Amino acid sequence: MKNTYNLKRVKKAAIQLSQLTEKERNMFLEYLIDALLYNKNDIVKANKLDIKNARNNNMLDAFIQRLTLNKKGIEKLIEKLNSLKDLTSTIGSTLSSKKLRNGIVLRKIVVPLGVILIMYESRPEVTIEAAALCVKSGNAVLLKGGSEAFFTNRILYTCIQKALRNAYLAQETIQLVEDRKEIGKLLKQSRYIDVVIARGGYDMVKNVMNQTNIAVLAHASGGARIYIDKSADLKIINKIIINAKTSKSSACNSLDTVLVHKDIALTLVPSLVKKLQAVGVKVLGDTVVNKLANTRKALQSDWQTEFLGLTMGIKVVSDAEEAIDFINTYTKRHSEGIIAEDSKVISTFVNSIDAAGIFINCSTRFHDGYEFGMGSEIGIATGKLHARGPVGLKELTTYRWEVYGNGHIRE
Amino acid sequence: MKNTYNLKRVKKAAIQLSQLTEKERNMFLEYLIDALLYNKNDIVKANKLDIKNARNNNMLDAFIQRLTLNKKGIEKLIEKLNSLKDLTSTIGSTLSSKKLRNGIVLRKIVVPLGVILIMYESRPEVTIEAAALCVKSGNAVLLKGGSEAFFTNRILYTCIQKALRNAYLAQETIQLVEDRKEIGKLLKQSRYIDVVIARGGYDMVKNVMNQTNIAVLAHASGGARIYIDKSADLKIINKIIINAKTSKSSACNSLDTVLVHKDIALTLVPSLVKKLQAVGVKVLGDTVVNKLANTRKALQSDWQTEFLGLTMGIKVVSDAEEAIDFINTYTKRHSEGIIAEDSKVISTFVNSIDAAGIFINCSTRFHDGYEFGMGSEIGIATGKLHARGPVGLKELTTYRWEVYGNGHIRE
Repeated sequence: MKNTYNLKRVKKAAIQLSQLTEKERNMFLEYLIDALLYNKNDIVKANKLDIKNARNNNMLDAFIQRLTLNKKGIEKLIEKLNSLKDLTSTIGSTLSSKKLRNGIVLRKIVVPLGVILIMYESRPEVTIEAAALCVKSGNAVLLKGGSEAFFTNRILYTCIQKALRNAYLAQETIQLVEDRKEIGKLLKQSRYIDVVIARGGYDMVKNVMNQTNIAVLAHASGGARIYIDKSADLKIINKIIINAKTSKSSACNSLDTVLVHKDIALTLVPSLVKKLQAVGVKVLGDTVVNKLANTRKALQSDWQTEFLGLTMGIKVVSDAEEAIDFINTYTKRHSEGIIAEDSKVISTFVNSIDAAGIFINCSTRFHDGYEFGMGSEIGIATGKLHARGPVGLKELTTYRWEVYGNGHIRE
Repeated sequence: MKNTYNLKRVKKAAIQLSQLTEKERNMFLEYLIDALLYNKNDIVKANKLDIKNARNNNMLDAFIQRLTLNKKGIEKLIEKLNSLKDLTSTIGSTLSSKKLRNGIVLRKIVVPLGVILIMYESRPEVTIEAAALCVKSGNAVLLKGGSEAFFTNRILYTCIQKALRNAYLAQETIQLVEDRKEIGKLLKQSRYIDVVIARGGYDMVKNVMNQTNIAVLAHASGGARIYIDKSADLKIINKIIINAKTSKSSACNSLDTVLVHKDIALTLVPSLVKKLQAVGVKVLGDTVVNKLANTRKALQSDWQTEFLGLTMGIKVVSDAEEAIDFINTYTKRHSEGIIAEDSKVISTFVNSIDAAGIFINCSTRFHDGYEFGMGSEIGIATGKLHARGPVGLKELTTYRWEVYGNGHIRE
């Protein structure tokens, strides 16, 4: 498998792809499903090899879990591809159209981003999901997966190549980047690569951002805080907090810190701490919490940590304002929440917090493209430009201005 | 005037500003107009000092022109502020709202970008336009103008400060950065600065992009190409080309290269060249053009040059496909045009060219926020994310997701 990319041809492949119909682009998804079904056993075999190597390298269980792609995983992937096929990309649609006073017709048309470089870690199914999302939205893509999934990604890519051939798409439409050394070079190719999507740990994402001046869609840090107001409905607190913390503690939308209004601290904190500890959560508390419950003392640095595991901080605050200040100090602009019934408090909170998603009386774990009804997603972005929150089909598009005159000149 | 910025307070000012009503934000514009009227004479006096210094530094006339802010210029600026006031920002409006199957209500709400750092060169009226656009769209802003406009910008900023005070806005809402050395530090403050807008020459913009991993809205290069198809209406060609080249040759949407279909080259090129030369354009031609008219030979490098002056290249091509390849090779993704009547050729061209704006049978000089009916603009962006083309009120906003539950947890 060669890994030399003629980026000029990739760009051309992107332009060709952008001119196909939705039906033609869907053909690729159909052939990809066929190829995955046909190669199911070989994919699992390749994946077992990657897992064996990971075990030899003493990787943690959580890592092995992310790396694993078994038959059930492949079936789930196929299910996702089928539902993606049913979605409608907006490519070619008109965002606005107007006739200017001088008679010129101005149209704003949805177009694909162009060529996307996607970097991700360990989870090999991203190879398929990213390829499918990109083709569906009319984008050519360069895929750089984790080296730990080398053999799995390689066979998945042969499935992709087969589907490209069968759907009469240029082979340059989707390319696999296997050599890590290529990345540094690719990140300099702003002439040919329109957008970089980075999906991985803090160091990886920061490293990418620092190496390129191509626009990056990503979040380097995630994690969430939830403020429990004195007006909160006490019945819903525990289940939201437990769910936000424990339903998938390695997820980027899982809870790191709970802020409790002082007026309800005495009622709430002891029982909440007990419930959290009962399900294995290590709770760190501020001075007040330490007095109310059997918790360890939180260090200053704990308030800004994305734990990505079963550790969590609790702090008592005087009012919503203090909670807002705290959150705006430590937020990663990803997911922040509030439990409250007082609509004025809710509205002040929502309007004062600077984050992509704000969760009112529900778990922050809902911050997810699939949960938002966007179909598949390729990550969550926390920057201010373009996509904020889940990056799905729509977020993989941009627009162009088409200006139709009839000999018009500017006075 | 101190230039130490407490960015935490700037961020807070941005959040406060975002919660005001349109009417309250418009108050700032009204007081700014008052302040400009009141200080008109002093502004002109300060500007004369900047001009004197520029002349002492042997700056070119074109530069002095951009630097000049006379009474007429101030009146025009006030006119612009008045029309900006009449526009409606979309802050707080709902982009989408839906109830998910689980009963959660998901809202996508327009919000300001937050804190913007704007860098620009020479033209001092940008100080006022940028301040006004940012406040109108709910954003706090740090303004770094050209050092050549030092005295003009300083007095314009006192007008801004006065308007901030009168409108009861925090002084940190708009700050002037006078010391160039501060820029390097500010470009590292991704925690507090949400977006950088750079407006200037290639070196300045590239330099900014290379120094920061904050998202940048800008175009480093501009310039345009126009392809004249064999199906073109001959009557409209000359006026479009002359207008695109000469109506403001220093503008980023002015014409650099004309591509002529070979079938009409003999009819068109000699007369077009004569007309261009008659209005002072230096025409560079490829081999065919040099045979048809009295032009200088274009070098390879001329095809990729943004001339920003009265120089232009003409090249003969075999067909639309060659024109498209040429343009996609040399485009700056800013403005590209076609003159043609054949609708199939037009549609292939429009769908194959990768640029922010595509101009069909009209001058590329129309690529401008004001011409597009967007009111004021703060530059033209050529990146793929967020704004493509003119950056106006709408483009200075983003969105947040608000997720309303009632004790909902994720299964």
